[in-house]
Amino acid sequence: MMKVVIVVILALATTLVFSFSLHDMTCLFVNGKFCKDLVTVTANDFFFSRLNIPGNTAANKLGSSVSLVNVNKFPGLNTLGISLARIDFAPYGLNPPHTHPHSSELLVVIEGTLLVGFVTSNPNKLFTKVLNKGDVFVFPIGLIHFQFNIGETNALAFSGLSSQNPGLITLANVVFGSNPPINPDVLIKAFQLDKSVVDYLQKQI
Amino acid sequence: MMKVVIVVILALATTLVFSFSLHDMTCLFVNGKFCKDLVTVTANDFFFSRLNIPGNTAANKLGSSVSLVNVNKFPGLNTLGISLARIDFAPYGLNPPHTHPHSSELLVVIEGTLLVGFVTSNPNKLFTKVLNKGDVFVFPIGLIHFQFNIGETNALAFSGLSSQNPGLITLANVVFGSNPPINPDVLIKAFQLDKSVVDYLQKQI
Amino acid sequence: MMKVVIVVILALATTLVFSFSLHDMTCLFVNGKFCKDLVTVTANDFFFSRLNIPGNTAANKLGSSVSLVNVNKFPGLNTLGISLARIDFAPYGLNPPHTHPHSSELLVVIEGTLLVGFVTSNPNKLFTKVLNKGDVFVFPIGLIHFQFNIGETNALAFSGLSSQNPGLITLANVVFGSNPPINPDVLIKAFQLDKSVVDYLQKQI
Amino acid sequence: MMKVVIVVILALATTLVFSFSLHDMTCLFVNGKFCKDLVTVTANDFFFSRLNIPGNTAANKLGSSVSLVNVNKFPGLNTLGISLARIDFAPYGLNPPHTHPHSSELLVVIEGTLLVGFVTSNPNKLFTKVLNKGDVFVFPIGLIHFQFNIGETNALAFSGLSSQNPGLITLANVVFGSNPPINPDVLIKAFQLDKSVVDYLQKQI
Amino acid sequence: MMKVVIVVILALATTLVFSFSLHDMTCLFVNGKFCKDLVTVTANDFFFSRLNIPGNTAANKLGSSVSLVNVNKFPGLNTLGISLARIDFAPYGLNPPHTHPHSSELLVVIEGTLLVGFVTSNPNKLFTKVLNKGDVFVFPIGLIHFQFNIGETNALAFSGLSSQNPGLITLANVVFGSNPPINPDVLIKAFQLDKSVVDYLQKQI
Amino acid sequence: MMKVVIVVILALATTLVFSFSLHDMTCLFVNGKFCKDLVTVTANDFFFSRLNIPGNTAANKLGSSVSLVNVNKFPGLNTLGISLARIDFAPYGLNPPHTHPHSSELLVVIEGTLLVGFVTSNPNKLFTKVLNKGDVFVFPIGLIHFQFNIGETNALAFSGLSSQNPGLITLANVVFGSNPPINPDVLIKAFQLDKSVVDYLQKQI
Repeated sequence: MMKVVIVVILALATTLVFSFSLHDMTCLFVNGKFCKDLVTVTANDFFFSRLNIPGNTAANKLGSSVSLVNVNKFPGLNTLGISLARIDFAPYGLNPPHTHPHSSELLVVIEGTLLVGFVTSNPNKLFTKVLNKGDVFVFPIGLIHFQFNIGETNALAFSGLSSQNPGLITLANVVFGSNPPINPDVLIKAFQLDKSVVDYLQKQI
Repeated sequence: MMKVVIVVILALATTLVFSFSLHDMTCLFVNGKFCKDLVTVTANDFFFSRLNIPGNTAANKLGSSVSLVNVNKFPGLNTLGISLARIDFAPYGLNPPHTHPHSSELLVVIEGTLLVGFVTSNPNKLFTKVLNKGDVFVFPIGLIHFQFNIGETNALAFSGLSSQNPGLITLANVVFGSNPPINPDVLIKAFQLDKSVVDYLQKQI
Repeated sequence: MMKVVIVVILALATTLVFSFSLHDMTCLFVNGKFCKDLVTVTANDFFFSRLNIPGNTAANKLGSSVSLVNVNKFPGLNTLGISLARIDFAPYGLNPPHTHPHSSELLVVIEGTLLVGFVTSNPNKLFTKVLNKGDVFVFPIGLIHFQFNIGETNALAFSGLSSQNPGLITLANVVFGSNPPINPDVLIKAFQLDKSVVDYLQKQI
Repeated sequence: MMKVVIVVILALATTLVFSFSLHDMTCLFVNGKFCKDLVTVTANDFFFSRLNIPGNTAANKLGSSVSLVNVNKFPGLNTLGISLARIDFAPYGLNPPHTHPHSSELLVVIEGTLLVGFVTSNPNKLFTKVLNKGDVFVFPIGLIHFQFNIGETNALAFSGLSSQNPGLITLANVVFGSNPPINPDVLIKAFQLDKSVVDYLQKQI
Repeated sequence: MMKVVIVVILALATTLVFSFSLHDMTCLFVNGKFCKDLVTVTANDFFFSRLNIPGNTAANKLGSSVSLVNVNKFPGLNTLGISLARIDFAPYGLNPPHTHPHSSELLVVIEGTLLVGFVTSNPNKLFTKVLNKGDVFVFPIGLIHFQFNIGETNALAFSGLSSQNPGLITLANVVFGSNPPINPDVLIKAFQLDKSVVDYLQKQI
Repeated sequence: MMKVVIVVILALATTLVFSFSLHDMTCLFVNGKFCKDLVTVTANDFFFSRLNIPGNTAANKLGSSVSLVNVNKFPGLNTLGISLARIDFAPYGLNPPHTHPHSSELLVVIEGTLLVGFVTSNPNKLFTKVLNKGDVFVFPIGLIHFQFNIGETNALAFSGLSSQNPGLITLANVVFGSNPPINPDVLIKAFQLDKSVVDYLQKQI
């Protein structure tokens, strides 16, 4: 029950809450599930480790791996309005078109060469750039964006995200991979695709 | 210049602002471009008309027409956090999968029969329903949704939206219709499509 | 208990919460009373019906009937920042001076002829307009407003409101109809009325 | 022009802005009309005086005087989300039923005896209390409230308000004193008053 | 448990909540610990007393006493975004450098003569002023400020604060008085102090 | 002039604004000074570089260097609610006790060993931890914190911050280094220091 309440609270004007709770309560949100008395809180509640370990880019067809440190993995982020991601790319690995409904993303390239981009609406303008080591790119909240390793070596990037729970909508999965599937007639008409292609995609994804 | 400022202000905690400006300023935003002295403001600044006229559903392949009364068309909505849409559907007309990054949508059916739905993420669950005259359905902010006329007659709906400028991201247009186009390799990999299909879609849309 | 918490949460930066809860929780607010696991949520949680049925305008002296679809009637609106009203008017029916402390109201006339208006403060300026079929008028948040059917036929309007729980303060009821009654000396002095009139009004309302 | 923008900004999440502008800008809002370089800002921009002087309670029929230190009188409050009022009462002086759309009010009695109250809606419940020296009472945002000196001596109170511009809607003035006047038929029906009384009130107020 | 939830809620867009709860719930936060049915709420829930009694300025080395009426002492302030403080000063009494992370402070001098000031950052500019009876000074949210009685008589001030729970960080206590103590090497390097002075301060405070 | 307005806007509910401006305006904030038409915006407006270059830790007594990519250096961050810092430490280098009034900080160690900590208030509890490569630590908004290289080699960390303009209050500088200096009697009393020490510190810092 509290889970609801606390997790919901995270969605609100978040950063204030936590400092508030630290300043003014004898209580701390530890994992969105219950409340821990400040007396029993330790520095470990604000600590997360092993972000030095590369993600497994061979686990999917896309050749990328996102290690997102959000409130679900790191409860101490509750209400702090920030999260972090380590993104590993195999050669030609892709972090496919997606949007974070709750956060902007600020990415810095540690190794490799990435083609990145996002699309605005009204009009649907693409902003795209090739990034190298030390380059930084920002993806505004709510906009559809991608990162693509165009180098022949692995690539590594870190991203800061402006919410402890950025949310994720991966377009291909939402449109062609929902459960239950969207009525094919809707997709055929929307994407001007043959029924066979839509059937294929709904099986694929 | 002011346009920026004022329109940007609309994106903020909007409803307070306007009543504030009415209560506490001798000034009113009239079209996001300039400021009108309260002395010269008239009831017409809060008035919009002709929403009784059906939209032209023959103007596009989709067979639908959205007459959105947002702040761009009705400047008096500035900062009021509300807009309204009249949506007309030809038989089998479709309002294709899209999202409003800034608002939820509450739709009421005036005439006809609509299949509507939205998809959540994590997991990608589809919520879908057939609506008839007098039925109401709500599409939560930021989620991808659609409306499809499954009747053999025209359909009509009105929607209230929780922002004076809801924003619109139509998936097919963003992914396959951006300018410049997204690198085809990104779409091929993301959607697991043949290059030919991606090329076709990027031409189509 | 949760009722408090959850309903209160609705009053906050609402739209984020819900999409957040859908994206990031395995839980949904269903009626402000308890939490429903996303697994058990169905499209019906986002569905409301029978807004095609006229309200009974003969049930009160004013000759109007407001069918407000807010979070109390439609729990799925929780945190979505939007509600809808169907307003029926008998000939000369009145929706009396009132204010919505939590929302602006965007009204569209479906049938009939309405005299509408709102009053600002500092100065107390009245903005008033006669509306016909297809006309739209916006009432800024927090301002006192009314709608009056000046036609000899019934009138019908729909309103979108910028909160799932707009709130309602009907002036006559608050001032002369409170329980217990406001000290008559306060009203006599504030409205410059005879004690007899105040006594009469406090009985009436 | 800037006046609009700046004053509007005040209506937003205010307190952050100002500290922000002090921390991160070389600029300060001084009177809502223009911007002053931090180099030229002095302590006087944060200073206001003479709140030790009683207000003139003989200037109106109500026998009260409110000296509100809001952003219009004290520009340095811009965006700080706080204002202050000194309220003087002659014997039987009344601060009549009104509401602050933008703020709660926390009142402390310095001298005298006040009958205070506010009314909720749904239901219209009156909360009322007699206050003496050193007593504190809070009036929640948006609710209609009043203060009445029931002692035979002058009374004095200070109020803190949770906005630099609380706004003010005095019911009697809005309903019966608007310019132009509200259509009498609306008031006759809403308040169940004879036309003669409504005419009288519209003349009075 | 509820304490957490409710107190946390206070940190959010607070003022809306309470009026919301009064308007739209049959429930009220009474002490941050539980919820009281509106039926059982009384005017006493909005009432606090005895702010006419001077604080004891002899209880500490600083010669000042702050009687803060915040939500912890006055539960009815929950979510109302306002609190109040009575500040008493012995001759040469000091309210030492501190910051309120959640609120601005608007101070009015009732008796005596105070030297007040706050410091901005980037650059670290001090704004300071001598205040006498009836003078008002505002301390912007988050900035370090102090009040010092430079008169030979007692001084008295009242402050309105823009949060029901302003929070308090007293610099000397945080830096030299934390538990456990901060690593002395950190303080030696940060403040360019001898180890002996740091040891002394960590013992003192 | 616009600088004020735009920078102020950044302080508000920021992330919405920018996506809003991209979606719904033909304009973009480019450097807080003026507005650039969306037609002329390029990917470079969202791009920053050279964060691969170590900062100069020999430029100050503290042996640390913070390369903060905030909105002042990277205008494209305007309103996106996120910034990034590269922090370099010489052996025993210190990032001294400070607070970010507008943001939480999420730090990941790339190289080296850091002792980090923050202090809460009420009570003044220190949370401290030794971090190694791949470790992550979060500093809640508004709390005083530090990072200290306790290794004999250089250290490197990246931090994501939950505001495009986190703000910075470095305690030693604010208290002992303000211009003009704070009245020594205030500091002597607040920190229980000899006048000679305060004089020394005010000269030092």
